[in-house]
Amino acid sequence: MSYFSSIPNIAFEGPGSDNPLAFHHYDASRKLLGKTMAEHLRLAVCYWHTFVWPGSDVFGAGTFERPWQQSGDPMQKAREKADAAFDFFTRLGTPFYTFHDTDVAPEGNSLAEYRNNFAAMVDVLEKKQADTGVKLLWGTANVFSNPRYAAGAATNPQPEVFAYAATQVRHAMEATHRLGGANYVLWGGREGYDTLLNTDLKRERAQLGRFFQMVVEHKHKLGFKGAILIEPKPQEPTKHQYDYDTATVYGFLKEFGLENEVKTNLEANHATLAGHSFQHEVATSIALGLFGSIDANRGDPQNGWDTDQFPNSVEEMTLVTYEILKAGGFTTGGFNFDTKVRRQSHAAEDLFHGHIGAIDTLALGLERAVKMVEKDTLAELKAKRYAGWDADLGTKILSGGFTLASLADEALSRDLHPKHASGHQELLENIVNRYIYG
Amino acid sequence: MSYFSSIPNIAFEGPGSDNPLAFHHYDASRKLLGKTMAEHLRLAVCYWHTFVWPGSDVFGAGTFERPWQQSGDPMQKAREKADAAFDFFTRLGTPFYTFHDTDVAPEGNSLAEYRNNFAAMVDVLEKKQADTGVKLLWGTANVFSNPRYAAGAATNPQPEVFAYAATQVRHAMEATHRLGGANYVLWGGREGYDTLLNTDLKRERAQLGRFFQMVVEHKHKLGFKGAILIEPKPQEPTKHQYDYDTATVYGFLKEFGLENEVKTNLEANHATLAGHSFQHEVATSIALGLFGSIDANRGDPQNGWDTDQFPNSVEEMTLVTYEILKAGGFTTGGFNFDTKVRRQSHAAEDLFHGHIGAIDTLALGLERAVKMVEKDTLAELKAKRYAGWDADLGTKILSGGFTLASLADEALSRDLHPKHASGHQELLENIVNRYIYG
Amino acid sequence: MSYFSSIPNIAFEGPGSDNPLAFHHYDASRKLLGKTMAEHLRLAVCYWHTFVWPGSDVFGAGTFERPWQQSGDPMQKAREKADAAFDFFTRLGTPFYTFHDTDVAPEGNSLAEYRNNFAAMVDVLEKKQADTGVKLLWGTANVFSNPRYAAGAATNPQPEVFAYAATQVRHAMEATHRLGGANYVLWGGREGYDTLLNTDLKRERAQLGRFFQMVVEHKHKLGFKGAILIEPKPQEPTKHQYDYDTATVYGFLKEFGLENEVKTNLEANHATLAGHSFQHEVATSIALGLFGSIDANRGDPQNGWDTDQFPNSVEEMTLVTYEILKAGGFTTGGFNFDTKVRRQSHAAEDLFHGHIGAIDTLALGLERAVKMVEKDTLAELKAKRYAGWDADLGTKILSGGFTLASLADEALSRDLHPKHASGHQELLENIVNRYIYG
Amino acid sequence: MSYFSSIPNIAFEGPGSDNPLAFHHYDASRKLLGKTMAEHLRLAVCYWHTFVWPGSDVFGAGTFERPWQQSGDPMQKAREKADAAFDFFTRLGTPFYTFHDTDVAPEGNSLAEYRNNFAAMVDVLEKKQADTGVKLLWGTANVFSNPRYAAGAATNPQPEVFAYAATQVRHAMEATHRLGGANYVLWGGREGYDTLLNTDLKRERAQLGRFFQMVVEHKHKLGFKGAILIEPKPQEPTKHQYDYDTATVYGFLKEFGLENEVKTNLEANHATLAGHSFQHEVATSIALGLFGSIDANRGDPQNGWDTDQFPNSVEEMTLVTYEILKAGGFTTGGFNFDTKVRRQSHAAEDLFHGHIGAIDTLALGLERAVKMVEKDTLAELKAKRYAGWDADLGTKILSGGFTLASLADEALSRDLHPKHASGHQELLENIVNRYIYG
Ligand SMILES: [Co+2]
Ligand SMILES: [Co+2]
Ligand SMILES: [Co+2]
Ligand SMILES: [Co+2]
Ligand SMILES: [Co+2]
Ligand SMILES: [Co+2]
Ligand SMILES: [Co+2]
Ligand SMILES: [Co+2]
Repeated sequence: MSYFSSIPNIAFEGPGSDNPLAFHHYDASRKLLGKTMAEHLRLAVCYWHTFVWPGSDVFGAGTFERPWQQSGDPMQKAREKADAAFDFFTRLGTPFYTFHDTDVAPEGNSLAEYRNNFAAMVDVLEKKQADTGVKLLWGTANVFSNPRYAAGAATNPQPEVFAYAATQVRHAMEATHRLGGANYVLWGGREGYDTLLNTDLKRERAQLGRFFQMVVEHKHKLGFKGAILIEPKPQEPTKHQYDYDTATVYGFLKEFGLENEVKTNLEANHATLAGHSFQHEVATSIALGLFGSIDANRGDPQNGWDTDQFPNSVEEMTLVTYEILKAGGFTTGGFNFDTKVRRQSHAAEDLFHGHIGAIDTLALGLERAVKMVEKDTLAELKAKRYAGWDADLGTKILSGGFTLASLADEALSRDLHPKHASGHQELLENIVNRYIYG
Repeated sequence: MSYFSSIPNIAFEGPGSDNPLAFHHYDASRKLLGKTMAEHLRLAVCYWHTFVWPGSDVFGAGTFERPWQQSGDPMQKAREKADAAFDFFTRLGTPFYTFHDTDVAPEGNSLAEYRNNFAAMVDVLEKKQADTGVKLLWGTANVFSNPRYAAGAATNPQPEVFAYAATQVRHAMEATHRLGGANYVLWGGREGYDTLLNTDLKRERAQLGRFFQMVVEHKHKLGFKGAILIEPKPQEPTKHQYDYDTATVYGFLKEFGLENEVKTNLEANHATLAGHSFQHEVATSIALGLFGSIDANRGDPQNGWDTDQFPNSVEEMTLVTYEILKAGGFTTGGFNFDTKVRRQSHAAEDLFHGHIGAIDTLALGLERAVKMVEKDTLAELKAKRYAGWDADLGTKILSGGFTLASLADEALSRDLHPKHASGHQELLENIVNRYIYG
Repeated sequence: MSYFSSIPNIAFEGPGSDNPLAFHHYDASRKLLGKTMAEHLRLAVCYWHTFVWPGSDVFGAGTFERPWQQSGDPMQKAREKADAAFDFFTRLGTPFYTFHDTDVAPEGNSLAEYRNNFAAMVDVLEKKQADTGVKLLWGTANVFSNPRYAAGAATNPQPEVFAYAATQVRHAMEATHRLGGANYVLWGGREGYDTLLNTDLKRERAQLGRFFQMVVEHKHKLGFKGAILIEPKPQEPTKHQYDYDTATVYGFLKEFGLENEVKTNLEANHATLAGHSFQHEVATSIALGLFGSIDANRGDPQNGWDTDQFPNSVEEMTLVTYEILKAGGFTTGGFNFDTKVRRQSHAAEDLFHGHIGAIDTLALGLERAVKMVEKDTLAELKAKRYAGWDADLGTKILSGGFTLASLADEALSRDLHPKHASGHQELLENIVNRYIYG
Repeated sequence: MSYFSSIPNIAFEGPGSDNPLAFHHYDASRKLLGKTMAEHLRLAVCYWHTFVWPGSDVFGAGTFERPWQQSGDPMQKAREKADAAFDFFTRLGTPFYTFHDTDVAPEGNSLAEYRNNFAAMVDVLEKKQADTGVKLLWGTANVFSNPRYAAGAATNPQPEVFAYAATQVRHAMEATHRLGGANYVLWGGREGYDTLLNTDLKRERAQLGRFFQMVVEHKHKLGFKGAILIEPKPQEPTKHQYDYDTATVYGFLKEFGLENEVKTNLEANHATLAGHSFQHEVATSIALGLFGSIDANRGDPQNGWDTDQFPNSVEEMTLVTYEILKAGGFTTGGFNFDTKVRRQSHAAEDLFHGHIGAIDTLALGLERAVKMVEKDTLAELKAKRYAGWDADLGTKILSGGFTLASLADEALSRDLHPKHASGHQELLENIVNRYIYG
């Protein structure tokens, strides 16, 4: 009998329903701006967070005790886990999932075992995808949990570790390609430093640059059409990670000639840890041409670690979704739930509550963002605010028509006295709230 | 009579002296690694922090009441301020100073007045430099305090404000050039946003890029040989500044083709606000080829605003100076005291205590960093740690000798089992402390 | 002609209205749970933030240039300011205001001048209150802005400064009493330290304790029936303030026997700076019997200083208002707007946009909190969660029926094996969102 | 053969030695202010951090693979661990150790097994203490790691969990008493909340208060003469812990009448997480009469979680030790190393490097603090700063000689004009640095 057998398939019942195991706002087939909610949001459930993590933290043991987390034959357990996972996806009704190689298959004790275990489980996943219609949003390789990666994968002081990681990434990329994945993600969990005293920043940067180039070359050789995504995070587990935030990733990509080859997978909680609003990271990523996909979670603004909670702020997600819609919406990306139920929430149904609440939050945010785009008052007011830059002086400056000296001469001869204009921030905040609260 | 007349010239009296108005460690002419302490440190006093700021904060009025801050004819007050400043430099014995245009001359009520006032005061400064031998480390323009800059200078929604700022920057650059300044600094105090709701990130980025290009072009036209420096800061006064940290500045410079034209002026307190250690910002700047100069201050690790306190941690400054020495030391840059005495410290002598303590801190850090470089145990241990990357496998990987697939094949065929090696962080920390504490 | 003459009286027009200068949710006379919205919220406008602060910050001069902020005879300007303030209150339709003594009257150059100026302006305010019906939520004394308070007021190393502050507080209390104020607030802007090196924590604590005792004694002597409120803040302008947060204030009050005499005035932004959620501070204050009043603003979760922005999160204010309603609602307290328009927002109408948006946010939060109380699912689930504490074992433990040893014996003899129960956090978060989003 | 057999006993070799496995500053028998260094510092090694934690973190598995961490019979492994621990203590030469009950003995599957296992291991420890002369600084109970404590121990919604914890604490207290422990510590790792939505703050506070009372009563019944210590921590693993910081603990103790029965065990890293300097927590604890013992570690000022690194800042520890010496030094407390080697530092010798560096740091700090106390310039300057409070006006105010009104009358009649005096913070910082750097 399935672990989730007491849970019904989750249906849209509308805002009036009292059923906590139903969607109140997410109506997959409802059309907005010519696309269904499902097409807009491209929701994905994350294997590691929902089926692998046992509910442990640094101060305590796992609380979840899922059947597939008990001891036993590793391959058998991996198959049971896959059964539970696809059962969950199906009951929840989300179209996509995401995984690390070692989430779905046991690592084994050698690269050969790794390869064989993983290959066997990819067969299993392929069949399950076909049976259920669930699709792969992205795959990735876990090159940070095993002790061999304690000092990094691509940035490890030992090239043998780089080679080990390359092997995993190769297989994870090929599996992703075979399973029809829409993207391939790189999160450099240990690509950073614990102390500068033993770290050669420049050397490690070169190692990481070469690694990413190899990944991009392999993508093209495979003919993989999905996007390669880097997931910025400022710190944790390392003191400092090289993919700190979007702006840092941009400089890195420019240095290694990869800015047109790689995009970002932005996680809300990582933005929080980096000292940015989530909207900032999304808007920056769009402005730099790097927007790819979203790990939709939330951190705790008062706590300094990666809590990976389910998103529940419609206010935040409305602004984020507005940015995404304005940029044309997702292409290969989607909203992936890089989210953990709390360690106390060990019941099977808690996994549903977490996802249902998050999905309704995104649906509410989408609904409101669509209204913002349909009658785009913010865009109108912005256009007015910057109008001078579309007129003579602005155009001439930006197009290189002035030197510093000639512009200064012009300013003096015109005896410029520009007065500051109000930015009307409060009015704009009120306008947004009226989109949200009607 | 001079405001500082009760203060003697500050002399080196050695560690044994009990005189608080003497240097205990900074011996300007003492040679280390072939250069004097003065040549290594290139110390500068900052006009704004020491002579302009009145001791006010958001919750209270100025406490300092310097004579030149009283009401009166602005040009007369500017000359009195210059008298006091050069008197201070001379008594303290520091070789450099730094200024904003509006620190030294009244802004006036029009660009023409601005230009005339500033020109008159540059004459005054030129004479004072000649009389005292004090030199200009850098000049800069204040394009953030006047209300016209409330929404930014180069990134202002009004191109007229861009033009106004260009005028100031042009004159500040030309004054810097004429006064023999070693660098020209750009700090974009309002180049950022208060809310994304009224901000066009991409447009403002283009404006700022063009502005920096114009600055660089003007530098070459002038024949100015000093460096152009950008000073990263993450926030304050804005919610988010575009020159957030070194890594962000690097990406910006790459986008606009300026990475070989501009360097960074790194401020300790700004690193703290960005969530980085100061050593991180210095090391990153060196790794990216952007190292220029230092604003030597400190923040408060428990407070979230820019406290601009005098540096007093030898432990921190030793590590920073070690990085700088390893990179070849300052060329055009130096240690500038972007530092304010506390609002309570209104006595004339407090200005000396602040600078003396900071200078002795830097001297102690230098002394210890020199020992670290002379017998460079850290470098030896680092070389050993990364030795594999100088051997066959590492060299072949980095030089492009492998594809992802061929490296994975190699790893599998060699059945790699790399074991994690200790990073010995604790040992390295102990080694550093033995350099510091003998 | 009035500064605000272009602004109509702000009316409730309902959610459908497009008029930004109207309330969309705040309907003053609408009844919920037996009280009108106005009675629930007890809204107050803050003199300092709205009429005194000139739009300056540490890096720039004031941008607002209100007519009453121009130079001129101080008493004349004070009267013009009062005219504008009461005109604003009236157009906005808020029932309360709040002030510092030095907001409404010039400080003068001696205590005698202070007293006379203040007395004259209290006459003005009294008349204006009578004319408009606007009431005083609380008064307070500014004993932190003048340079004499640089090292604190009650905690100053000079008892003369304590005496000066005592004089101001006496007059501010008496004015508050005379003007029918509902509370008197103490915010110790400089009651803290900048460095422990020159600070005697114990001595300053005793000074502050005695000061608060004198205030309470004076309250009773006056026959003032309002509450005495302390406003916790962790830092800024000082490095560390003695009234750090609610829990700290509680310990302080207990030490000086004042826990039944003083309550808290909680500010959202101060909670943020202290590392707490606003809901935490409110809930803690209620649990400790200290809840008094609210400074309803918001900080920026990414910036480390007191931004005092208008509240605009219905999600946050719903939870806060739920706590307040459950505790019985305000008695003497209310929602005071300790809020500044942004420095860029210099237009007269921006002051209205800020307040209108904040008021609608509170109204929306109130509406939702009322629903939460009317059908209080959270309370039901909490009761169930703690049911064991109302049964035998729990009751016996709490009532002192066990020693540690006897309870251990009981546990052993019963061979207890308690299993962790789910806290269902995700479900509860979903329930709250359904109250908010229907 | 011992795990540490390659490591010699660590001897004092003086600053000149190049041996990393020697003390360079800690000379146990050196006398300062009439006590040996060993008597001043009372150093303790922590069982959990050094022998139990496997080098895992949230993103990766353990890296240490100590022999006693391998699978096998739990009691046999516990004895091997004790062998290694006392071997380590002896080679390092530290006089004290500290433990949690479940560090030294397996939990078993029932309270009876727990009791029996623990009793057997206490016998082992007793014999080892006798054989080696190593003493117990404090014992404690781990009531946070087992899943049963996921929602707290004393503050758990189930009274059965309270009873379970009481049983552990009873046995841990009795073991501590029997082993001659100098203190008993309470760290409430899960005594806090994850969300206010399911939390009854007042109820949980009452539970915790009663728990602490039972602990104190049991102490007296046992005749245990050591101190009961609470270890404040603001958060992690919970969102918010009830023993947030020293000031919070003080209010809690006052409420439950325990302020004379309980002291604090202050951890440096917890101060950092609470937004305080470590010196602040120590000074506050002394000012409130709560100072007990120290967990001497450090956090990372840029990372928001509990890194538990070895202390290596002499600058910080000098100030902390100065506070402690001024307060009379440790009585029952000491410096305990609540410190973990980094996850990468898996070599046996890394455990020694970590402790040696930390001990030398404390020795250097002690040496300098002793100089500060011997010629106590800071105290002299403080006395001068507050002199007015020892004179007429100050004494009369503090002793209740004034009401608010009579003091205001006095101020007015004396026409007070107090001027702010400089706090000379920069001078004081320089003085401290001269104590540190000579
Ligand atoms: Co993620
Ligand atoms: Co995360
Ligand atoms: Co600076
Ligand atoms: Co600064
Ligand atoms: Co306030
Ligand atoms: Co505030
Ligand atoms: Co601890
Ligand atoms: Co800790």
